[in-house]
Amino acid sequence: MLLTQKQALLPISRGEIPAGLVLKNAQVVDVFSEQTYKADIAIHQGYIAGVGVYKGEREIDMQNRYVCPGFIDAHVHIESSMASAFLFSKAVLPHGTTSVVADPHELVNVAGARGMDYFLRDSEHALINVYFSLPSCVPLGDDHNGATFSAKDMAPYVEDRRVVSLGEVMDFLGAKNGSQDLLQKIELLKHKTIDGHAPSLTGSDLCAYKLCGVDTEHECASFTEALEKLRRGFYILLREGSAAHNLEDILGGAIASGISLDRFLFCTDDKHLDSIAQQGHIDYNIKLAVKLGLNPVKAIKLASYNASRAYNLPDTGAVAPGYKADLVVLDDLETIKIHDVIKSGVFYSQMPACPAPQYDPNDPIYHTVHIPQITKEQLKLKSVNIFPVLSLIPHQILTRRESIAIPQQNGEFTPKNGLLKAAVVQRHDFSGQTAVGVVKGFGNLHGAIATTIAHDAHNLIIIGDNDEDMLLAIEELKRVQGGYTIVQNGAVLKTLPLRVGGLFTDDETLPLSQTIHQMLDICHQIGVEKDIDPFQNLSFLSLCVIPSLRITDQGVFDVEQQRYLL
Amino acid sequence: MLLTQKQALLPISRGEIPAGLVLKNAQVVDVFSEQTYKADIAIHQGYIAGVGVYKGEREIDMQNRYVCPGFIDAHVHIESSMASAFLFSKAVLPHGTTSVVADPHELVNVAGARGMDYFLRDSEHALINVYFSLPSCVPLGDDHNGATFSAKDMAPYVEDRRVVSLGEVMDFLGAKNGSQDLLQKIELLKHKTIDGHAPSLTGSDLCAYKLCGVDTEHECASFTEALEKLRRGFYILLREGSAAHNLEDILGGAIASGISLDRFLFCTDDKHLDSIAQQGHIDYNIKLAVKLGLNPVKAIKLASYNASRAYNLPDTGAVAPGYKADLVVLDDLETIKIHDVIKSGVFYSQMPACPAPQYDPNDPIYHTVHIPQITKEQLKLKSVNIFPVLSLIPHQILTRRESIAIPQQNGEFTPKNGLLKAAVVQRHDFSGQTAVGVVKGFGNLHGAIATTIAHDAHNLIIIGDNDEDMLLAIEELKRVQGGYTIVQNGAVLKTLPLRVGGLFTDDETLPLSQTIHQMLDICHQIGVEKDIDPFQNLSFLSLCVIPSLRITDQGVFDVEQQRYLL
Repeated sequence: MLLTQKQALLPISRGEIPAGLVLKNAQVVDVFSEQTYKADIAIHQGYIAGVGVYKGEREIDMQNRYVCPGFIDAHVHIESSMASAFLFSKAVLPHGTTSVVADPHELVNVAGARGMDYFLRDSEHALINVYFSLPSCVPLGDDHNGATFSAKDMAPYVEDRRVVSLGEVMDFLGAKNGSQDLLQKIELLKHKTIDGHAPSLTGSDLCAYKLCGVDTEHECASFTEALEKLRRGFYILLREGSAAHNLEDILGGAIASGISLDRFLFCTDDKHLDSIAQQGHIDYNIKLAVKLGLNPVKAIKLASYNASRAYNLPDTGAVAPGYKADLVVLDDLETIKIHDVIKSGVFYSQMPACPAPQYDPNDPIYHTVHIPQITKEQLKLKSVNIFPVLSLIPHQILTRRESIAIPQQNGEFTPKNGLLKAAVVQRHDFSGQTAVGVVKGFGNLHGAIATTIAHDAHNLIIIGDNDEDMLLAIEELKRVQGGYTIVQNGAVLKTLPLRVGGLFTDDETLPLSQTIHQMLDICHQIGVEKDIDPFQNLSFLSLCVIPSLRITDQGVFDVEQQRYLL
Repeated sequence: MLLTQKQALLPISRGEIPAGLVLKNAQVVDVFSEQTYKADIAIHQGYIAGVGVYKGEREIDMQNRYVCPGFIDAHVHIESSMASAFLFSKAVLPHGTTSVVADPHELVNVAGARGMDYFLRDSEHALINVYFSLPSCVPLGDDHNGATFSAKDMAPYVEDRRVVSLGEVMDFLGAKNGSQDLLQKIELLKHKTIDGHAPSLTGSDLCAYKLCGVDTEHECASFTEALEKLRRGFYILLREGSAAHNLEDILGGAIASGISLDRFLFCTDDKHLDSIAQQGHIDYNIKLAVKLGLNPVKAIKLASYNASRAYNLPDTGAVAPGYKADLVVLDDLETIKIHDVIKSGVFYSQMPACPAPQYDPNDPIYHTVHIPQITKEQLKLKSVNIFPVLSLIPHQILTRRESIAIPQQNGEFTPKNGLLKAAVVQRHDFSGQTAVGVVKGFGNLHGAIATTIAHDAHNLIIIGDNDEDMLLAIEELKRVQGGYTIVQNGAVLKTLPLRVGGLFTDDETLPLSQTIHQMLDICHQIGVEKDIDPFQNLSFLSLCVIPSLRITDQGVFDVEQQRYLL
């Protein structure tokens, strides 16, 4: 809180002047004592001025409803929602989320500091508090991504009050082996929180990783893993995203063993707008925790105070004088049913319409698909002899390496029997560098499907059964500057433009979820297996840390051997 | 931890190089999970390099003894021990205290920034980590003290890594009423912890005080008071000092009510070396908490992790990689019997003799008693008509105002029947300003007793039954530049020199406790009541915030009326 705000609030706090708004007869959910108690909450200029007995210019009877601190998503890639921070905030606020720690790892991979700037600017319009992590691993390894985000690039952001952490240190092998680059970045942000990402790291290697200065971990998959990491000093983030569901395993074990939950918090990491709309956001983590037997007040504490403490979020995470009036009103503590949400002292149910931030079509963030004319020649598979095939494992992002005889005609691969051509086109530097491979497991697609979301370099990735449709799909994504597209028989069937970095949209008029559903339907109509989401699968097919085979603009990559194949 | 330290420790952490010292078979007291578990602790260059299975150049079998983080005194005025930080550290380390947050309020009242500098310098030699609060209320009110410590004076210290908080905001009425001076000081240290001091403050006034930005409170006298302050967002410091004993009342209530203890920590505030030697330090708080029924691991957490978190003490408060190897080895968790203490990786039992810091007799900190020749005329009581008498209330620092006929001869007060003359002499500015009053309750002293410890201005205060002895006592304390003295029949019976600011000693050859005991004996021999510690009582007789009458160099002060009497 600013000094001038304190001066304005003090007479209200002392009870000498009525507060702008007083919530009468609230059952305060007190994260400090882990109990509830009845009181009035005096709110003024977006802050809590006092808790106790207060008079207000406007008084609203809470009728003994529970009033708890707003929920905090401690680690989220907003890009995964496929919406801007502004649109994302409109989706999560009704679910009680009033603050998030966002790691703009994806957009910064595409646009570097410019991506960081876009997020900082866009989030100023958000309905919630958006705090930031500075992505630590851009690029990841030898990725041909759009930009580098070095310690030098980070420096101008370090003092920004919204920057609260170094983004997940994904190169955990580099870190524990003393990578100068990572240690320097950690040093630069040593007064903030350092986020970790070290799935399955254990023993003395885990100790070394901790010693580097890493504070949090959101990649635990089991209670055993979480307990070891907790003991070594990591905060444990219980993740419930669209794909990753780690809360039950870890929290179930934690409750059963009776350990302290002081260092546990909640996050979503990656969650689509669609899943948020259907399932909820951090309120879903709370509900799940309560279902597992956790005391609801404690669950709310994990969702608010614990996250605020781990990231030192200012004036956030409790119902007390001087804290932001970011509150959730609950009907009860059994179902955690949200009655209303208060952000900066304003009820969500009474919020005026919030206009979207102004759109500047010339902003370079909307022009990130830089591809020259691609030729049929470039889509030719280099070798058709025992070429290793990337075979999807259903419902996983892992792939299996298969050695299958490649169907061919005149020495060229002719997709059939579930074998499709996959290509990755470098889209950041106009080089048009393209690599081609063979994939299996998508079904008998007739046509082409392409996307510019392909972790972490986010080059253009495309699958198809014929070169003409594949080339058209590339042209279509150049036209809209990124997104999803489906092409068949020389015609574009449907395109979802994702204009911000080719990763997500800030266009409020775009029916995002509806379009995605339509496109999935079309994919399945033109031959994709019913239970496969081709866009999701494609988005991980370039991520060279997931076994066993990947494809990037540089070729087909063997993750176990850590090398490109011919 | 510095970057270079990390680089040196990483190979040890990874287990590639043996650690300098490994504690084998330790039962780690884990403050994160609030459980214990068996492991080796690898220590190198003063830090914990790893926890798990490790080999060391030197291995010591802990034989399943408990190893817990070093204890932290979250709020202490080291001056109250009457010893320097260096001497104090030698007293508390064997009791498991490895870090303290010291508020040098007394010395800064005498010497301003020079006092701060002395403490920072002296504490570099201490055997423990000494962190600091910057005193916020110097002078307190209109005190004629030795120096002012304004926001401007504080500024050079704000970035010092050892400075972790703003010292207790004792002027709580000023703060809650929006004192510019205090709000500015809070603003200056807003990235650090703001210490509170607001006995009995409640309701909306307490909310206003919290809103100013105050974080902690160590003045709670009951569980009810502590619970209200906890709910409003204060950390609650459970104090066990020489005089104040608040732990049982508060913690007893807290345990009974089942509230969370996440925001509770331990402190001593003021504790003499003598009490420390007899009773212990923070280990005493732990033992008392365990006796009240608190889980020992939880009690240790309050004594370590909780304090470290509240004050953001770097690399402190847990047994995990990257933390300082500040550890306590316990024989058991029932009696909390300390087997040994490890500071920065060195066992206390094996520590080499630590030389005291060098003494520079010309340092102005040793020359703070600035008094011209005082005359008999100055010790004359201005009026002998119904003069209000400061009457001690036994075993309390409160006084009662009594209106007693003053015994007189030739229009001058002649001490007798338990009525003594009291005088306060300004000792900071050579003005020699002196005020005289009448006290009761010390007994039938024959002679004079004087001290330069008199909160908070620390002028020279003296009682006696004749002016000659009183004048000699003043001269004696000028000679030694501060301390305690006893004079009778024109002779100095005994003097305790307290050369640092006239408040404490840094002379290791001085038998401090022994001298104090001798002097108390002498006091009682020359007429002081048996159960009165005259030095203690004198040290509070100038503190104008304690009811009902006080005496300063400006006169006799009525605390209720907040004015000086004739």
